[in-house]
Amino acid sequence: MKNISSVQNPLIKQLVQLQEKSRTRKSTGLFVLEGQRELLLALKGQYEITTVLMHEAICDIDAVMAMWHEHSIPFPDCIIISANVYHKLAYRDTTEGVIAIAKSKSHTLNRLELPPTNPLILVAEAPEKPGNIGALLRTADAANADAVIIANPKTDLYNPNIIRSSVGCVFTRNIATGSTEEVISYLKSRKISLYGAALTASVPYHTVDFTGASAIVVGAEATGLSNAWLQCTDQNIIIPMEGEIDSMNVSVSAAILIFEAKRQRGFKEM
Amino acid sequence: MKNISSVQNPLIKQLVQLQEKSRTRKSTGLFVLEGQRELLLALKGQYEITTVLMHEAICDIDAVMAMWHEHSIPFPDCIIISANVYHKLAYRDTTEGVIAIAKSKSHTLNRLELPPTNPLILVAEAPEKPGNIGALLRTADAANADAVIIANPKTDLYNPNIIRSSVGCVFTRNIATGSTEEVISYLKSRKISLYGAALTASVPYHTVDFTGASAIVVGAEATGLSNAWLQCTDQNIIIPMEGEIDSMNVSVSAAILIFEAKRQRGFKEM
Repeated sequence: MKNISSVQNPLIKQLVQLQEKSRTRKSTGLFVLEGQRELLLALKGQYEITTVLMHEAICDIDAVMAMWHEHSIPFPDCIIISANVYHKLAYRDTTEGVIAIAKSKSHTLNRLELPPTNPLILVAEAPEKPGNIGALLRTADAANADAVIIANPKTDLYNPNIIRSSVGCVFTRNIATGSTEEVISYLKSRKISLYGAALTASVPYHTVDFTGASAIVVGAEATGLSNAWLQCTDQNIIIPMEGEIDSMNVSVSAAILIFEAKRQRGFKEM
Repeated sequence: MKNISSVQNPLIKQLVQLQEKSRTRKSTGLFVLEGQRELLLALKGQYEITTVLMHEAICDIDAVMAMWHEHSIPFPDCIIISANVYHKLAYRDTTEGVIAIAKSKSHTLNRLELPPTNPLILVAEAPEKPGNIGALLRTADAANADAVIIANPKTDLYNPNIIRSSVGCVFTRNIATGSTEEVISYLKSRKISLYGAALTASVPYHTVDFTGASAIVVGAEATGLSNAWLQCTDQNIIIPMEGEIDSMNVSVSAAILIFEAKRQRGFKEM
């Protein structure tokens, strides 16, 4: 195994670029992830890991190698890194001493696989904070939504904050991105009903039937859904709010809506 | 009006102590809030504001004074602060140049006012992060829960992060705190059914009838509800999770549970 103990090493410099710059991620088709759980979910999501970097003092190397063994794929390039290199790269010290480089996937709409009947899809329009995208993905994961579509994304999916706040489920969810026009056209052509979370001209969410093919569409926290969405939905819906504050965190509203759909659908085999 | 332009001024030093130290807040019975919306909600919640500090370059002084006028109470001590003092005290620059000192309230259980029939209460056991408490309060606000009870609190309610993340609704919600034993005894003596969010030995949340007097009890994110709670509830409930990640953010799960209760209750006058 190779050893790196200098933060000036060109590979380490490239890793920092991949962490910090969306442009570098796009031009190279690579991204960085850290943590054992994240790595496990990336393997489960069939991501190709090109390099694994481990800090021996913290990392359980056998446990990491066992993950590849379980998936019956050869272990990739492996580099042992020193404490200073690890601390330069790691977001926090609880990521078990393991960092990896992986190849990104294409998330175009035409690659999205949907179940043949009654898919349940969560659509988020232009979510601004990576942390909110991660939280939305966690909600979609808990509900096992058939897909998450991000319309007019403001960041790429491999932003380290998205990976972290999704606890790695960005790798296992079925995700696509596209412009608002593309997403609307995609959903309409598949006869999926669109339900837009709105504040006006809408009906209470729990009065709507979500048991058919449904896309629940939520907007950015600050601005809500754009008119492009509001005007082409099948029904706009509202969560009745009875307090002093007139907004909810987008991942909280998405959770209320998508779990109401799950409730109507009886959850899985209940 | 008095002017303060030095961060060494004793009052400014006291404000910093009030922001940073729970102990100082407890010993003085005072706390600090910032922002126009937060101030408005504190007045609405009948908090006594003892001092208002405004940074003229940002603050709309007339708008601030109008808030007192609307509540028909005399304007308190007012101090004009310089930019350096404001930036020393302010968490962010979007709080409209206004900071205030207010008197805290007692939150003992015996002061909690509940509606005579079928109250809906959110109970959180020992939430660790102030940001999570703020998010829970926002959820309780949106649902207009009759009360929020924090059992075994780890922080006082006037922690600046709670005020901020609750967007000020910490001032308008009906909130009590107490030890787990006190809270259980309080709820049981009032014949309020306890529903504990659990992972085992529980029924799916949506199969439970929340239309009677109900307390929905959620635990800390890392550890879940303690046995003290799990063993004395009327029913433990679970949100069926079908994904890779086995936990949800506590404010997200609380929102799913409390909005299911609201749905069953038909929301307000629907």
